[in-house]
Amino acid sequence: MSLPQRPAPLRLGIAGLGTVGVGVLKILRREAEMITMRTGRAVTVTAVSARNRGKDRGVPLEGYAWEDDPVALATRDDIDVFVELMGGSDGPAKAATEAALKAGKDVVTANKAMLAIHGQALAELAEAHGRVIRFEAAVAGGIPVVKALTEGLAGNNITRVMGVMNGTCNYILTRMQSAGLPYDVVFQEASDLGYLEADPNLDVGGIDAGHKLALLAAIAFGTKVCFDGMELEGIGRITIEDIRAAEDMGYRIKLLGVSQMTGRGLEQRMAPCLVPSSSPLGQLEGGTNMVVLEGDSVGQIVLRGPGAGEGPTASAVLSDLCDIARGFRLPVFGQPAETLSAAEAAISMTPAPFYLRMALQDKPGALAKVAAVLGEAGVSIHRMRQYDHANGTAPVLIVTHKVQRADLDLALAGMAKTGVVEGEPVALRIESV
Amino acid sequence: MSLPQRPAPLRLGIAGLGTVGVGVLKILRREAEMITMRTGRAVTVTAVSARNRGKDRGVPLEGYAWEDDPVALATRDDIDVFVELMGGSDGPAKAATEAALKAGKDVVTANKAMLAIHGQALAELAEAHGRVIRFEAAVAGGIPVVKALTEGLAGNNITRVMGVMNGTCNYILTRMQSAGLPYDVVFQEASDLGYLEADPNLDVGGIDAGHKLALLAAIAFGTKVCFDGMELEGIGRITIEDIRAAEDMGYRIKLLGVSQMTGRGLEQRMAPCLVPSSSPLGQLEGGTNMVVLEGDSVGQIVLRGPGAGEGPTASAVLSDLCDIARGFRLPVFGQPAETLSAAEAAISMTPAPFYLRMALQDKPGALAKVAAVLGEAGVSIHRMRQYDHANGTAPVLIVTHKVQRADLDLALAGMAKTGVVEGEPVALRIESV
Repeated sequence: MSLPQRPAPLRLGIAGLGTVGVGVLKILRREAEMITMRTGRAVTVTAVSARNRGKDRGVPLEGYAWEDDPVALATRDDIDVFVELMGGSDGPAKAATEAALKAGKDVVTANKAMLAIHGQALAELAEAHGRVIRFEAAVAGGIPVVKALTEGLAGNNITRVMGVMNGTCNYILTRMQSAGLPYDVVFQEASDLGYLEADPNLDVGGIDAGHKLALLAAIAFGTKVCFDGMELEGIGRITIEDIRAAEDMGYRIKLLGVSQMTGRGLEQRMAPCLVPSSSPLGQLEGGTNMVVLEGDSVGQIVLRGPGAGEGPTASAVLSDLCDIARGFRLPVFGQPAETLSAAEAAISMTPAPFYLRMALQDKPGALAKVAAVLGEAGVSIHRMRQYDHANGTAPVLIVTHKVQRADLDLALAGMAKTGVVEGEPVALRIESV
Repeated sequence: MSLPQRPAPLRLGIAGLGTVGVGVLKILRREAEMITMRTGRAVTVTAVSARNRGKDRGVPLEGYAWEDDPVALATRDDIDVFVELMGGSDGPAKAATEAALKAGKDVVTANKAMLAIHGQALAELAEAHGRVIRFEAAVAGGIPVVKALTEGLAGNNITRVMGVMNGTCNYILTRMQSAGLPYDVVFQEASDLGYLEADPNLDVGGIDAGHKLALLAAIAFGTKVCFDGMELEGIGRITIEDIRAAEDMGYRIKLLGVSQMTGRGLEQRMAPCLVPSSSPLGQLEGGTNMVVLEGDSVGQIVLRGPGAGEGPTASAVLSDLCDIARGFRLPVFGQPAETLSAAEAAISMTPAPFYLRMALQDKPGALAKVAAVLGEAGVSIHRMRQYDHANGTAPVLIVTHKVQRADLDLALAGMAKTGVVEGEPVALRIESV
């Protein structure tokens, strides 16, 4: 039997040789034969770029051309795909991505920030040049969730997307619970372990996870990616007492993203909330990610796996590269960028029970005032606990019946005016998952 | 902006209008616009075929040509894709699939039995004619697991695949546990509820789940699909006492498939076994499926979702159809059929602890004889319980230390010769998951 002629190799230029870039290089070197077998085409590295040429990365770079400038790398005549693993929403990553698309290169990236902010413009640019941008590695590490949503559930109207997608936050919250340690101590541990981004607020402020949710929402609901329209809240105000109170009531606190299309527009929120301890989301420990996809035909699909790290993230980059080598081409967000609708950002109107924690001043009738404000706003109380006074204030925990966020916000504004609540109350949604 | 010219519609012939076929028709009718938006191409039904033309299926068939003969349907000039939803490993399903491929049609099927038995020959036939066979719906219902494995983890050497993939067996086992009912009673319940195949042994004998595992193993390990080489055991011998004993020790009994490549060949087993109650597999209830994929780069990915039913299975068929409409083409088992290696079927040599249950005759020294036989075979005992005699025999439960299956089989053969063990002992592997 004569062998069919193989197509030319798929030639890569890789910008960014941090953990992920090095992981990708290692797989491409080690598994060249397997990848060719699976895709019908060799996938080779032509050139690389990084900030520090001299650094020992544990992988030989002699075989690859070197470029100091990622834009120069992205536009080389001898590459087919620009692999952007530098990070950062703007600056060199964006400049090089745009240059690559204009030069007729496909792009594979792990850059959630760039796509969450500039995704629509980049998708339009890519499609105008007949190019693809693939970003499996940008969301939930090694879990092939972009593929599951864009292709595996392509026959569904997606009704809801949820996910725990920041391993550092989940590590902090589960460690606080298991070790009984306060937030500040565990935050420092995570910092010492190298789990935090250079700007920790990207992690604990919910921004990184929010970027990921915004990308999934665009695919799921056919909307222009709209990070600005997201309700965003970090985990910095969660105390060990919140975690214990939640546990007592059969819940865990997770930084959970929820996105759903409603008659009023696209609801997107990334915020700490309570989920049942016995649910798959409630049982998620440490750095593992979980994404829940709900569709009108399929029902509920749950995907669980490592959300970060060299191997998992490189695995996701390889999935995109193998797809391109196989000739799989589709619009950046699963349908042509020009057909994506403007996402009318809707404040979450889906009613839910809420967990409230506040510090009541030691004044007569304080609790009655709070209860009255809640009642006036139409917020009814399901459970309430008041604890002993300490430092002049008494912690009060309230679980409400189902209420709309707007009504709750009205009540919270009213509480501030009573003069009996110290500081700002914590309000966490109790999600049905 | 001038609209680019749309490619011609993708024209389907659908054979088999049972639950899944009707589900596919409903989605194609309801979501025509969405599918065109996502794939860039209309997906239309030209003709259908089923056994009973007159039956009311709740979906109008007037717009479609009718064929009594699925082979005639499969070879019509006006279809591009033959959608095989009849089932059965041979007979009309196989004849029509072969005819379709020879006539230059792509094939989408939910038929695990046909592919588990004839997969290699059909893959070779498809590839000889430049056609694809897609079978997402054949494995784990709505979970996009074939896609996750073939594409999402394409950069990994897969090290192990595990799964609970027969919802009926999982229903029976979880119902026995939750209601404390014996196997026969719950089997009858499942039968009354319509959960069982016409030949119930396909379900409770592990055959249906075994077919699914064989397909995943072929993709995962690049081997010719080899259902005959699988260790296969059904759930019919599991008693409520086994379930309770397992529960006491912190385990659940699941019909679990495990496939891994070893130095001695491909291990594939589909058998009831014990998994930790607290593990994701242990917590799986009712008809839900779960598949665990392990790769050298990605680590462990867990996928969970509905394993059967109109909506979920139709969702999987639609995923394949959308891929074909998008122009995604890849070999049937993820690499060319001619490159798939012969699967040397290896009896499971991976050592594991085992759970043993046997009925000891009421004779002096019976237990000592059993213990001696185990010791001679090199099987050491981790835990043992003997219960009161009933009907002349005493139930004995043993948990061994890690042992190879071959040594255990030696011990079991030895026990039969002692003359003190009534009937055949039950031996269930305790899987580390």
